[in-house]
Amino acid sequence: MKIDGKAYRTIWRAGPAAVEVIDQTRLPHELAFRRIDSLEAAVEAIKTMVVRGAPLIGATAAYGLAIALAKAADDAALEHAYAVLLASRPTAVNLRNALEDVHAVVAPLPPAARAEAAFRRADEIAEEDVKLNRAIGEAGFALIKAAHERAGRPVNVLTHCNAGWLATVDWGTATAPIYLAHDRGIPVHVYVDETRPRNQGASLTAYELGHHGVPFTLIADNAGGHLMQHGRIDLCIVGADRVTARGDAANKIGTYLKALAAKHNGVPFYVAMPGTTIDWRLDDGREIEIEERSPREVTHMWGRGSDGRVAEFEIAPPGIRAANPAFDVTPAELVTGLITERGVSRADKAALAALYGRG
Amino acid sequence: MKIDGKAYRTIWRAGPAAVEVIDQTRLPHELAFRRIDSLEAAVEAIKTMVVRGAPLIGATAAYGLAIALAKAADDAALEHAYAVLLASRPTAVNLRNALEDVHAVVAPLPPAARAEAAFRRADEIAEEDVKLNRAIGEAGFALIKAAHERAGRPVNVLTHCNAGWLATVDWGTATAPIYLAHDRGIPVHVYVDETRPRNQGASLTAYELGHHGVPFTLIADNAGGHLMQHGRIDLCIVGADRVTARGDAANKIGTYLKALAAKHNGVPFYVAMPGTTIDWRLDDGREIEIEERSPREVTHMWGRGSDGRVAEFEIAPPGIRAANPAFDVTPAELVTGLITERGVSRADKAALAALYGRG
Repeated sequence: MKIDGKAYRTIWRAGPAAVEVIDQTRLPHELAFRRIDSLEAAVEAIKTMVVRGAPLIGATAAYGLAIALAKAADDAALEHAYAVLLASRPTAVNLRNALEDVHAVVAPLPPAARAEAAFRRADEIAEEDVKLNRAIGEAGFALIKAAHERAGRPVNVLTHCNAGWLATVDWGTATAPIYLAHDRGIPVHVYVDETRPRNQGASLTAYELGHHGVPFTLIADNAGGHLMQHGRIDLCIVGADRVTARGDAANKIGTYLKALAAKHNGVPFYVAMPGTTIDWRLDDGREIEIEERSPREVTHMWGRGSDGRVAEFEIAPPGIRAANPAFDVTPAELVTGLITERGVSRADKAALAALYGRG
Repeated sequence: MKIDGKAYRTIWRAGPAAVEVIDQTRLPHELAFRRIDSLEAAVEAIKTMVVRGAPLIGATAAYGLAIALAKAADDAALEHAYAVLLASRPTAVNLRNALEDVHAVVAPLPPAARAEAAFRRADEIAEEDVKLNRAIGEAGFALIKAAHERAGRPVNVLTHCNAGWLATVDWGTATAPIYLAHDRGIPVHVYVDETRPRNQGASLTAYELGHHGVPFTLIADNAGGHLMQHGRIDLCIVGADRVTARGDAANKIGTYLKALAAKHNGVPFYVAMPGTTIDWRLDDGREIEIEERSPREVTHMWGRGSDGRVAEFEIAPPGIRAANPAFDVTPAELVTGLITERGVSRADKAALAALYGRG
């Protein structure tokens, strides 16, 4: 998508054994880039959320494995790189899927051929992500269009966190339908959840919607239920980091609360994600490991002072204890539908299996 | 309650026609006081949330009216002061109740006698608040004690915003049962919602619990549902700014989302408030006016930089649109019980009317 008129993706090749990414820890205050040219740099970029969002984590891990193989490509090096990348974040299934994918391609090859094949496969994974998101956009577009026809006024969509193009290689998952609707002249307005504690809504979704020209209003995470009670949300669309075979959806912490409010107020609640986000090995979302991140994300925050300087500041009494679970699981019963690259599916095991030919 | 070993209330007399208050906009970074010696200063303190919390707003308004009457006490001055104080915040019913109370006492008196009578009545309102909260504490204590006996381990209470002693004259409403349990040796641990956008949980509840020695963990507002899904919350206790005759409860924005999660997970959800918070004129909570506050509270935040300086920071892209409803309404069906100074009541019209002798 575009930033100030220039087309970007979130990750791109930069030389024979490196990629560059948008440094998402610097947004919205600054558009900065980061070069990733070693396994360590790839792991660090994922861990510190320079790159984040399940699909982008997957693509970065794929490139990270290729970059590692460009330096050492024997079996031990392959297994080591695979293992440390896999351990960089625990929740998103795309990370494992992308790594398994590249691993399966390169493992049978002689070491000398592995790096090139890994880069080729990583390129394909990145391109596939763009295509998947575009297809998710088409499926979700129909929902927004129908809501507009029913309402006869601009459609109000609530989204949580950033499942935008910054979370993917391009287009986004939850945002792809919104961008398509906007580009095609369906009036759409987005309520953007701030998404504490890392504020991906305020810093990333607000940034990307604003730069694309989609009207939006930033709200505290606490406000969405009230807006739904008063008929001010037509539908919710969120992303997912992992969806189980029966449709339980792990997504950014707080998603579950919005799904409860949507159910209570008869607001449709959609999860937008490609089939690659489905973990077919799991049914019960309660079995998904939930990453516990640093308490500092809760007690401190980054912001721009009146002097224009971006700095970290403390927002709680010093030395207190904080807990920071990064994701929660929305049970399938609260999900109206899953917006996938193959169309909109009911959130249940039979429907998902049928959609993906796994009956 | 105590701060660094010294007993405080949130508001106290300071000379013949003035009060002093704790400046709550400076917490948790600094314990500072503010002198209120004019009607304008009282209105400004309420509007800018130097004082906040429904009961403390009520007490401050009562003193504010007395302070105004000390300068001019004719009928026009009385009505003017009454009107501007009433307009200072729209949602909390305590504000109106306290003003009506003082007004009813002083209106029949000759102007020369009004100020003294108003101060006397304001003192009584403040003392009554302390007694009410202490009685709420006793009623809620029994719930925490029972939860401890059932669980055989420390009781985990979730609270939202600050319905602590800083929100009242002393003790707090939601916190009174917690302080009593802690002081009486029942092990209790509090999950404190940060409470965006003004962070009253992170800045006030964390501050007061910490200074009293009650164990607590700060969490993002988004985290509570996840904790309830995993059995990590035994009960929720929140305050209220206004409760209708049938038990719908207006409280800080986001309360409704926690009530939904509590219901969905079988966690008892209690609203602690004195009878003075009940608006007997309303049944349907949807009729409660919800204050819309400045978008700047969403896009900017106060914090302490690494140099120790407390300053305002921008946390969203510049110039964006934000919405900031300050309260939401939790329907009575989601409320397990109301913890009042007269005991724990079901959240329904008949039970509340019986409790307060309004059958």
